[in-house]
Amino acid sequence: MRAAIFHGAEDIRIEDVPDPRIEAPTDAIVRITRTAICGSDLWFYRGQQDYAPGSRTGHEPMGVVEEVGSEVRHLKPGDLVLAPFAISDGTCEFCHAGLPTSCTHGGFWASMTDGAQGEAVRAPFADGTLVRVPEHVHDNDAILDALFPLTDVMGTGHHAAVCAGVGPGATVVVIGDGAVGLCGVLAARRLGAERIIAVGHHADRLEKARAFGATDVVSRHGDEAVHELLELTRGGARHVLECVGGASSMQQAIQAVRPGGAIGYVGVPHGPAREGLDIMSLFFKNATLRGGPAPVRAYMKALMADVLEGTLDPSPVFDMRVDLDGIPDGYAAMHERKALKVLVKL
Amino acid sequence: MRAAIFHGAEDIRIEDVPDPRIEAPTDAIVRITRTAICGSDLWFYRGQQDYAPGSRTGHEPMGVVEEVGSEVRHLKPGDLVLAPFAISDGTCEFCHAGLPTSCTHGGFWASMTDGAQGEAVRAPFADGTLVRVPEHVHDNDAILDALFPLTDVMGTGHHAAVCAGVGPGATVVVIGDGAVGLCGVLAARRLGAERIIAVGHHADRLEKARAFGATDVVSRHGDEAVHELLELTRGGARHVLECVGGASSMQQAIQAVRPGGAIGYVGVPHGPAREGLDIMSLFFKNATLRGGPAPVRAYMKALMADVLEGTLDPSPVFDMRVDLDGIPDGYAAMHERKALKVLVKL
Repeated sequence: MRAAIFHGAEDIRIEDVPDPRIEAPTDAIVRITRTAICGSDLWFYRGQQDYAPGSRTGHEPMGVVEEVGSEVRHLKPGDLVLAPFAISDGTCEFCHAGLPTSCTHGGFWASMTDGAQGEAVRAPFADGTLVRVPEHVHDNDAILDALFPLTDVMGTGHHAAVCAGVGPGATVVVIGDGAVGLCGVLAARRLGAERIIAVGHHADRLEKARAFGATDVVSRHGDEAVHELLELTRGGARHVLECVGGASSMQQAIQAVRPGGAIGYVGVPHGPAREGLDIMSLFFKNATLRGGPAPVRAYMKALMADVLEGTLDPSPVFDMRVDLDGIPDGYAAMHERKALKVLVKL
Repeated sequence: MRAAIFHGAEDIRIEDVPDPRIEAPTDAIVRITRTAICGSDLWFYRGQQDYAPGSRTGHEPMGVVEEVGSEVRHLKPGDLVLAPFAISDGTCEFCHAGLPTSCTHGGFWASMTDGAQGEAVRAPFADGTLVRVPEHVHDNDAILDALFPLTDVMGTGHHAAVCAGVGPGATVVVIGDGAVGLCGVLAARRLGAERIIAVGHHADRLEKARAFGATDVVSRHGDEAVHELLELTRGGARHVLECVGGASSMQQAIQAVRPGGAIGYVGVPHGPAREGLDIMSLFFKNATLRGGPAPVRAYMKALMADVLEGTLDPSPVFDMRVDLDGIPDGYAAMHERKALKVLVKL
């Protein structure tokens, strides 16, 4: 089979790799029909994160079960499945508690098995990791496109909103107009927010934010954006979604949160980890900081129900579609900010 | 009248100062009967925090109302009152929301009015700031000693427990065996925790922690303490109270919290502010960080009810009692760790 391989900064190639095979009785083999390129993939692509040359890439698989191990109970060949960006056994304390990203036996795709940017992948703990798509939508491409972002960005935006405590009537600030920020807008609207202020720097993305339910957009930078947010919210929002992971975006979140409010953060905090977090401001505001890798698997069924009912459609986050051979171009386009998020259809 | 004045590091003196007088119609003048020296007073005492020489000190007053301004509605001369370490108007959005430490018009004693380590003090926003003690206990010294820590340390320990989400049956780690940590143990027990693990380095204080309800104590340092905590809790506690504010204590809290758990932090984060916060560990655990200056005023009536019923008595946190002239000795004793917390009786 063929798959994307990382060879070094800005060097992704499609190459022949061995077919995956069942290694544990809880494995399944999934023939991939849709996968994606993630904003977090750009870190190694840009050389900002260590990643071993020769490694497989990708962590957002959707596809058809081809084979299952002897202990897989709830899936069979032919099932169409979604997989979250984290693998989880579905049976441990943390999986039961709705935190599959802390699964005792779980992990991430490229480090635990194969990357998901390829023709097929071995899915460990198939019963725990994979979620079946109902048969009656198998041929509905629009619904499948809308379901597919549940593998990562939609669940991640939802996690930001949950962590920020968004509920009916809320005023919410969403920092970041990437795919996760846009999904954060959708999630906030879905949870009943009345006012959603999207913060970003790209006019086309902020337009998408409006289409997704943002009532206001703020496109200024730094302190000017904060000033505008504080004016719009008369002193800060009780709910702030930090959907970037940068030091300046986190600082904006801390400055824009209302005393006693909460910041939901879901971008791996590469900026704050390096430059420090303004904990004094957070402290004196009695603001809550809550977030982490989104437990996408735990959210998937509720979000799927809304997609199937037609009330949720995050598919517009994809603004470029490629086939397997187009993956290197997809990376380049996202790197150059020509594409927001790339859908790979096989 | 006489009051404590800061003259420089390790130099507190009792001197004559002008009597306080009503300046705003919402003021009251309180003749102080009990006040205290706080762990946070040691920062300027040790020269670790800027503090203007000649300034008054102290922020935990209890006493008798002597005079009220024309707009004070709920207090009259002769009332015995407690005051939290923060002044609040009782009427703004944040006061109504239970966050008087973010009061729109509020502030702290020494910066907004006089320090509270003296014979009397002007209390701004008397109706909002002061809480009346029922008359039937005015002569009950034991009850008054038990009520007095509600001005600061008991409310602060309670805030840590609330922020960490402590509830019935919880397993809780309390980091710090100072007055706030000990009150955190009391608060956790009061909120129904089943297992309370106190972490500190002083045998006598950990004995107090046991008397206050700690089921286990950990006296090792650094990573050894963390190792012991992870063993005792089989992988971390869902509720961790960080009652120190140091970089190493916060790191212990992050290491000891269970994935998906919460850290309540109430010590002004002087350590983490300087040395940074291990946000990557916090993030990958999906742990919540919540805390700030305790909204003591909002907690006071509920805690007072328990003290009056005899089910709550934080007074053992005081292990040294002095009169007004003994305040300099009290600072020295706390500075040298010969005293845990000093009660000043006038």
